[in-house]
Amino acid sequence: MATINEIGVAAAINIVTSIAFLIAFAILRIQPVNDRVYFPKWYLKGLRTSSIQTGGFGSKFINLDFRSYVRFLNWMPEALKMPEPELVDHAGLDSVVYLRIYLLGLTIFFPIACVAFTTMVPVNWTNKGLDGLKHSNISYSDIISYSDIDKLSLSNIPNGSDRFWVHLCMAYAITFWTCFMLKREYQNIALMRLQFLANDERRPNQFTVLVRNIPVDPHESICELVEHFFKVNHPDHYLTFQAVHDATKLSELVQTRKQMQNLLDYNINKHMRTLTKRPVIKMGFLGCCGEEVDGIKYYTSMVESLTREITEEKHRLRTGTKSIVPAAFVSFKSRWGAAVCAQTQQSRDPTEWLTEWAAEPCDIYYDNLALPYVDLKIRRIIVAVAYFFLTFFFMIPIAFVQSLANIEGIEKNFPFLKPLIEVKFFKSIIQGFLPGIALKIFLMLLPRILMQMSKFEGFISTSSLERRAASRFYMFQFINVFLGSIVTGTAFQQLNSFLNQSANDIAKTIGVSIPIKATFFVTYIMVDGWAGVAGEILRLKPLIIYHLKNSFLVRTEKDREEATDPGTIGFNTGEPQIQLYFLLGLVYAAVSPILLPFIILFFALAYVVYRHQVINVYNQKYESAGKFWPDVHRRVVTALIVSQLLLMGLLSTKGAHKSTPLLLVLPVLTIGFHIHCKCRYQSAFVTYSLKEATIKDTLERTREPNLNLKAFFRNAYAHPEFRVGENLDLEMAMEKPDKLPELVATKRGSWRNTSLPSKHI
Amino acid sequence: MATINEIGVAAAINIVTSIAFLIAFAILRIQPVNDRVYFPKWYLKGLRTSSIQTGGFGSKFINLDFRSYVRFLNWMPEALKMPEPELVDHAGLDSVVYLRIYLLGLTIFFPIACVAFTTMVPVNWTNKGLDGLKHSNISYSDIISYSDIDKLSLSNIPNGSDRFWVHLCMAYAITFWTCFMLKREYQNIALMRLQFLANDERRPNQFTVLVRNIPVDPHESICELVEHFFKVNHPDHYLTFQAVHDATKLSELVQTRKQMQNLLDYNINKHMRTLTKRPVIKMGFLGCCGEEVDGIKYYTSMVESLTREITEEKHRLRTGTKSIVPAAFVSFKSRWGAAVCAQTQQSRDPTEWLTEWAAEPCDIYYDNLALPYVDLKIRRIIVAVAYFFLTFFFMIPIAFVQSLANIEGIEKNFPFLKPLIEVKFFKSIIQGFLPGIALKIFLMLLPRILMQMSKFEGFISTSSLERRAASRFYMFQFINVFLGSIVTGTAFQQLNSFLNQSANDIAKTIGVSIPIKATFFVTYIMVDGWAGVAGEILRLKPLIIYHLKNSFLVRTEKDREEATDPGTIGFNTGEPQIQLYFLLGLVYAAVSPILLPFIILFFALAYVVYRHQVINVYNQKYESAGKFWPDVHRRVVTALIVSQLLLMGLLSTKGAHKSTPLLLVLPVLTIGFHIHCKCRYQSAFVTYSLKEATIKDTLERTREPNLNLKAFFRNAYAHPEFRVGENLDLEMAMEKPDKLPELVATKRGSWRNTSLPSKHI
Repeated sequence: MATINEIGVAAAINIVTSIAFLIAFAILRIQPVNDRVYFPKWYLKGLRTSSIQTGGFGSKFINLDFRSYVRFLNWMPEALKMPEPELVDHAGLDSVVYLRIYLLGLTIFFPIACVAFTTMVPVNWTNKGLDGLKHSNISYSDIISYSDIDKLSLSNIPNGSDRFWVHLCMAYAITFWTCFMLKREYQNIALMRLQFLANDERRPNQFTVLVRNIPVDPHESICELVEHFFKVNHPDHYLTFQAVHDATKLSELVQTRKQMQNLLDYNINKHMRTLTKRPVIKMGFLGCCGEEVDGIKYYTSMVESLTREITEEKHRLRTGTKSIVPAAFVSFKSRWGAAVCAQTQQSRDPTEWLTEWAAEPCDIYYDNLALPYVDLKIRRIIVAVAYFFLTFFFMIPIAFVQSLANIEGIEKNFPFLKPLIEVKFFKSIIQGFLPGIALKIFLMLLPRILMQMSKFEGFISTSSLERRAASRFYMFQFINVFLGSIVTGTAFQQLNSFLNQSANDIAKTIGVSIPIKATFFVTYIMVDGWAGVAGEILRLKPLIIYHLKNSFLVRTEKDREEATDPGTIGFNTGEPQIQLYFLLGLVYAAVSPILLPFIILFFALAYVVYRHQVINVYNQKYESAGKFWPDVHRRVVTALIVSQLLLMGLLSTKGAHKSTPLLLVLPVLTIGFHIHCKCRYQSAFVTYSLKEATIKDTLERTREPNLNLKAFFRNAYAHPEFRVGENLDLEMAMEKPDKLPELVATKRGSWRNTSLPSKHI
Repeated sequence: MATINEIGVAAAINIVTSIAFLIAFAILRIQPVNDRVYFPKWYLKGLRTSSIQTGGFGSKFINLDFRSYVRFLNWMPEALKMPEPELVDHAGLDSVVYLRIYLLGLTIFFPIACVAFTTMVPVNWTNKGLDGLKHSNISYSDIISYSDIDKLSLSNIPNGSDRFWVHLCMAYAITFWTCFMLKREYQNIALMRLQFLANDERRPNQFTVLVRNIPVDPHESICELVEHFFKVNHPDHYLTFQAVHDATKLSELVQTRKQMQNLLDYNINKHMRTLTKRPVIKMGFLGCCGEEVDGIKYYTSMVESLTREITEEKHRLRTGTKSIVPAAFVSFKSRWGAAVCAQTQQSRDPTEWLTEWAAEPCDIYYDNLALPYVDLKIRRIIVAVAYFFLTFFFMIPIAFVQSLANIEGIEKNFPFLKPLIEVKFFKSIIQGFLPGIALKIFLMLLPRILMQMSKFEGFISTSSLERRAASRFYMFQFINVFLGSIVTGTAFQQLNSFLNQSANDIAKTIGVSIPIKATFFVTYIMVDGWAGVAGEILRLKPLIIYHLKNSFLVRTEKDREEATDPGTIGFNTGEPQIQLYFLLGLVYAAVSPILLPFIILFFALAYVVYRHQVINVYNQKYESAGKFWPDVHRRVVTALIVSQLLLMGLLSTKGAHKSTPLLLVLPVLTIGFHIHCKCRYQSAFVTYSLKEATIKDTLERTREPNLNLKAFFRNAYAHPEFRVGENLDLEMAMEKPDKLPELVATKRGSWRNTSLPSKHI
């Protein structure tokens, strides 16, 4: 593998790249013309309306105040300055909790690194174990590539040495410290979430429950059915409901109108610049041939006709009942009523009248609301099978690319490149860059596929879609990046010995390969972590798109606002990445501590960068109040257990058999710890206690005794296309007299029979 | 192994034993003197007060009507005559559902046996595979003991034969048929349960929730705390509560008084028979030495002083608050309110104010109500460890006894017995009886230990205690009877080849041993199943105890009533036994169908016997409305999966490698089936839907608008010792005016702070 020299070159390249990105960012961000790209959050919050100008000619576009260039790194302390409670107000709890994952990484790994470097590195270094490897079953080509880096790792200790007790103690220390920090953080986050929910202002989702799988009734429409069901079964608490419409066609129309509007704007702008000639477009294939028409006129008529169609479609949806899907948002008079309805079973048939807390209106993913129970189950199976194939057949290209990226592999497959590769500098570049980049390209394609899978699977809120996609992405990374890199890489080196082992010995085989792969992962952290984070803050893609849109489409200040894409944290891609570093850190902490400084540097840099982005850029679309933390916690615990099992495999092949029973205790304890944490803290993320609901209800009743909640809910959960660019009219909500009659009128003939058991259970 | 002759002898012995038991029962049951032993249920229900007499001298004790001896088997059709709905009324749903397990066994195995005997037996029989075994790795001593019985099994098919496709198809057929029957039965039972609950009369547990882990509050007592908490958090639905007292001392006193009363009765009876002499007892060690006193006087004074102490203790419990434990039975005005409270989380801290449906008053296990959250967790860990050791170290004595019970083993260890054993008749007895009996004796000790474990673990109702003990007993039987018999038995034969295999091949090894062990399990079924069931109906132990008590203690008709111990179904021992037969049947159905007739006969006999017992004898102490069915279902599914895995292992060693992927589909499908059933039907056994609650509430409000529920709950959940032999007084329930004030007075100083987060989460 790579020598310390090669690692040095790779590190240098990556550090230079990262610093270049950071400097580019520091210069670009203080140009007023980029203000909307680098500080969109402030515009969205209405705290800034135009860029800060320093005066002088051209200062509207370029920063001429040279003092500000001197202080080009001052965004870092600025990013750290804002206190956490203010950050919660500014960006929401989700963002703050997300940032705390990085902090958790720092607090876990910094002490571990200190201990590892003071105790384990000397223990590993003062050995000559690697000289003895010639007698083992690892092929010759590996041994010659062992270098100084590997002398820091556990591989350097001869088989059966007593020094493995140090690693054993280290494993215990790592486990206890990690669990301690995890528990403290789970506790903190649970408390933050509860406090946030307690202090949160009144929102429709606090009173609303989403009901799905409303059964079909021949006597009543869905709206009547919902109303009757809840008036009967929640007589004192039910207030109103909002039907869900199947607005697929409307969405398409709105989408088309938006495109046409963009083209119209483009043509108008073009005309304004070249006042003499009216823009002309061709009606044929891709606008290249065919009849010529006046562009502005054509698009104006298109937009007008689409607007008419949209109005008609809206009217159709509002008045007709055919487009209503068997799901509804049911609102209650109090949070207590909603909490009760969300936590209880409504009907004896567990596939009907399924209730759950409604997510925030902007978090709802409307397309999946209508899916019936059976469909959901079938879709889940299909997605599981598809995911299985995606995960396991993805390994083939990675293995291929990595075998090419091997110096010896390239020399063998492309002999004409040999003189070039032998140049030391190029060799380092290839060693340092290629494997990481090949992986990175593969992984860039993935999140979209996984998100589509989650959408197909039928999740009904963006937050749950992202959580699911994150969980899948992590599994994928674990199997393909972590295990795949270790086993595939090894497969080309140790294929013979590997094929002859039984399934039982896989843990051992992986364990043995881990120290060998340390340098690969160092490279990976630098490319994926450091350069990735530095690239994140530069925001090259939004920058280019903004300036393109600004030149061609923007006419008004509102257009300019829409041209900015502040983006979001991107939980579904960001969190699995962090988790991979947690996994690498925990696995290598007791084996090759050389990885730890790289990981710590990543966590520190990422923390500062993402804090800056959260403050200045990202516009989180929904607020789930840190609901993803149980997932984060579970994945770190899983990584801890994996690290323990692999260390066990590694030590048992190193002749330290005595340690196995002692190491076996650790996974058992860790699983116990996980169960304890789950019992203790998870409920804060899943349910909403009646006591909390009562307290909030009571406070509200005291403060605003005459509150008209019904008006508050009106259209809160209307399909977003109803809300686009229009004032919501009042027809949507069914207006009823405030005083509800005691008896509920029903058209249903079979009402009397409901106490008899259903035949379908 | 045993030849067909030996099996025949064993079968003959067991059939004779069983028939002897049945005849003895048939004669004993028609003796009027045994009437209370064999028909206690009718006495308990008040449908019979004295035994039916046939007239003539001595007819009070002995049946002199010889015609009834001729019809001695007519209890069988009688037992089957009572229709199921009537049986539900007579004995409760639990008993009916329990009987349906036997019916399920019959409906699953009868068609399978028919198919197996028409298709598989010919396929197996017309082979000469066993002759080819000499080339395999099974030791010589096995081959010589193969006999005609084994010719019916899969072992008779040569390796790699195409005939294994028949077994593969059979495995599919078994899986689909079993799943179909399981699903139908789950559906039926869920429906029966829902119907039963819907038609059930008003009971306190329908309105009551058990609250545990009430937090300690320095400002308020537990009673005040409970009242305030529920008045605040369930203002419209809360009605009243019943505190739980720590009545350990009271129980002890009542127990002692009962013993003293028994001794007093014994002495009085003795005196009445020998009128001249007053009975004298000695006060020293065990009544053998020391000062002599008048027995009647002594025990009368003891009983009197204990009665006084009991009254005092009751008074102390009633008036003081120190004996109140942090748990309470909270009753609501409606079933709706109770359903809501039981299904929701009350406090943000998930370790406080834990609510669940209260079981029936007679089902509650009061000793565990006070256990705090942390204790429960620790106890669970302790019991898990203890159970692990119990399960795995129990195997040593069984292995020892079984190695002795082997003919060759006995001859080797006790050479002086050799001439006796060589007699063919004795040889058959030893082969047929010993292994089964050794196991049976071990297993008889076990249920008590497991019940104690469950009690220690902190379950709070007798039904859940029994369910837990049943689950543990089944696991124990699975590991020790099923796997233990197969692996240990084999371990003495194939130890060498077994030790050299990796953990991965265990399924294969067990699979191979299965056909060899068929005869052992045939014996086991006859001893444990047939003779066991016949013994159950004879009720020898209760018979003897009843007559002993009748002679020495009984003075009044009430005493005689108490002397009868009708017993219960004994779910914790009976159900695991049935499950073992399900396991054996499913495992052997595709391997050695010879087992199936024995199992079917067991199910049929057991069904008739237990139906008779349920009608005439057992007095089920609680009614859980079939809540144990999900456990039953899960265990049958587990047995099905085990059978599929073992068949896979067996076939892969028989050279039918092509079948492995096809067989691998089955466990996946079965697990999918289980998940489907769980989603679909389990909720009927776990939650109570609000719709059902509303329907029942509405009906009740219409029928009895002026019902005084508070009086109905009074003392419903008082500790049973309070209820023993006394009229409950009214002090226990705190009487309050019917109209509750809107505002709840509180002594607590920190009330205003409750909206702030607790420090303990």
